Amino acid sequence: MKKIKVKLRERGYQIIIQDKILGKAGLLIRKLNIGNHAFIITNPTVKKIYANKLKLSLSKQGIDSKIKVVADSEKSKSIPVAVSLIKDITVYDKNKKVFIVALGGGVIGDLAGFLASIYKRGIPYVQIPTTLLSQIDSSIGGKTAIDLKEAKNLIGAFYQPWLIISDVACLNTLAKREIRSGLAEAIKYGIIKDRRLFNYIQKYYQQLINLKTGYLETLISRCSKIKAEIVQKDEKEKKQIRTILNFGHTIGHAIEAASRYRHYNHGEAIAIGMVCAAEISWRLKLISWPTFIKIEKAILRLGLPTKIKQVSFKKILNAYYRDKKFLGKRNRFVLITKIGQTTIRTDIPLPIIKSAILTRF
Amino acid sequence: MKKIKVKLRERGYQIIIQDKILGKAGLLIRKLNIGNHAFIITNPTVKKIYANKLKLSLSKQGIDSKIKVVADSEKSKSIPVAVSLIKDITVYDKNKKVFIVALGGGVIGDLAGFLASIYKRGIPYVQIPTTLLSQIDSSIGGKTAIDLKEAKNLIGAFYQPWLIISDVACLNTLAKREIRSGLAEAIKYGIIKDRRLFNYIQKYYQQLINLKTGYLETLISRCSKIKAEIVQKDEKEKKQIRTILNFGHTIGHAIEAASRYRHYNHGEAIAIGMVCAAEISWRLKLISWPTFIKIEKAILRLGLPTKIKQVSFKKILNAYYRDKKFLGKRNRFVLITKIGQTTIRTDIPLPIIKSAILTRF
Repeated sequence: MKKIKVKLRERGYQIIIQDKILGKAGLLIRKLNIGNHAFIITNPTVKKIYANKLKLSLSKQGIDSKIKVVADSEKSKSIPVAVSLIKDITVYDKNKKVFIVALGGGVIGDLAGFLASIYKRGIPYVQIPTTLLSQIDSSIGGKTAIDLKEAKNLIGAFYQPWLIISDVACLNTLAKREIRSGLAEAIKYGIIKDRRLFNYIQKYYQQLINLKTGYLETLISRCSKIKAEIVQKDEKEKKQIRTILNFGHTIGHAIEAASRYRHYNHGEAIAIGMVCAAEISWRLKLISWPTFIKIEKAILRLGLPTKIKQVSFKKILNAYYRDKKFLGKRNRFVLITKIGQTTIRTDIPLPIIKSAILTRF
Repeated sequence: MKKIKVKLRERGYQIIIQDKILGKAGLLIRKLNIGNHAFIITNPTVKKIYANKLKLSLSKQGIDSKIKVVADSEKSKSIPVAVSLIKDITVYDKNKKVFIVALGGGVIGDLAGFLASIYKRGIPYVQIPTTLLSQIDSSIGGKTAIDLKEAKNLIGAFYQPWLIISDVACLNTLAKREIRSGLAEAIKYGIIKDRRLFNYIQKYYQQLINLKTGYLETLISRCSKIKAEIVQKDEKEKKQIRTILNFGHTIGHAIEAASRYRHYNHGEAIAIGMVCAAEISWRLKLISWPTFIKIEKAILRLGLPTKIKQVSFKKILNAYYRDKKFLGKRNRFVLITKIGQTTIRTDIPLPIIKSAILTRF
């Protein structure tokens, strides 16, 4: 078992990473003393495999629970779904002390966390991420949100969980494509903050792809620790510290949006976005050509895309312009000066951005 | 001009109280450096009298603004209204740095603050309360919310404003009934925390009712200061410090809800609720009979109701049971041990609560 503490001004919490820990979730949650009534939000696939195990584990500790299923799609992060769930929570609540459990990937975590943040001006919630992506990234740090058609995550709150339980065994039922998507965010941590982690992923990518427990536990712990450290320093993204987590995300989000969240999953879009950001770094003479190639190859090696297919350049550019990261007319990019070190630059000339995207076709 | 600082861990803000200060709102807001685009939420009555003055004042400082009107009714604190306004904000936003201004009473402040808390995970907002009730109470302390049919304020967030501008002159256009409603919350501060304030209101109630500027400025400042001090110690109502502000509110809310927010406005319902809470205090031998009578008379003197009409006992009792303050089976009441001092008691015997309500018929 690996424990990582996220220390925040108002309230800290733990990230617990272990193989086959779901059966102990009840015990871990009981210790939090947040009540006896869990409203579990999950998706159909995860429900089938894990929900009963969780329910039983809670029940053993005298915690009653109600399971609610939403579709496993970005579309669940919508106002209608949120409103419908809030109504379900009020029905379940009836003078109880309810807390929420997010059992699933990033969509479930973002949605459940947002509901916890606004119900009765904030009730406790626990993250039980079941994908690699959510275990190393989205479950940590309290960014909760739903989408509007204008942009992803336009409605949300910074609202930290009370506990994160990452069960490595949950990854066994994930599609390989989902594992690769998670590895994209994992290698991002290496690129922006930890050269040794970058090398570790390169060296053991076979073991990681093939879900060797020990390697995964190490990977998840190291990534979680990096994210926790960044979040601790800049909980609400006000100091340009948390910003570095957006490496590859400016263009990555544009690719995701342009493909209407169909052709590329998050990790794949971010993989291409990272290569673009690395290319911009090279074009601005912040890194050498060999460093750029090293990054591109590392991403390719994980079986992630580095080329754009099925989405037009024009659509990506339009999505890029719409992105909510734009405040006024200045653009802002997280770039790198070497593997493991970032710099934030504004007003990158548009031709350089365009070239970096065009090279990916 | 009176300035009160609300000091909080994360960020402090000022409450500025002055006669005829609305015309300087632009200047005060400019100093905050929160952008050049104000989304103003207001109600039809307030819009007619004050919105243009505010718009002009902002415009003089180079701040563009968009005014959006919602009905002056608790019904505006609803999911459909909130969703519709969020859409309006996204349309106005278009790559700008938008902040929100709440220009109106408690309904506007609660709604606008909640929208500010969830849009882009939190944007700045400024409170310009135009009723006595909102100037001394609801605009201060960051409690934002909308209602569900199950209960008032069921969806919300603790989200502090960037600035509060209380223009005493705005009260001139208020109905006397609204002034009295505000005085109910004012005398509450006296009862729970400040005997001198209680005496001040008793002594100068004529001047206050007749809107003598100096007296009002003193009243608003003293009430705001008490509220600010309580909020500073317990921003998110976790330490039973902020709880004392609920004096008179447990039964008051039940009366409001039972009358469907029609027969009694908030201050009137709370006036009756305070007499009930005082009676419970007396029945539990926490205060003497003369103290109880003193409180009852003081409330009567302000022209506030102390007797219940038009709502049945049964309906009030049902509403009381439903109240979300009930966690499990225990009830919790803010009571007083003397004028200016509170105590929080749980498990008050139901017959005592019932008697206290029945005496009001």
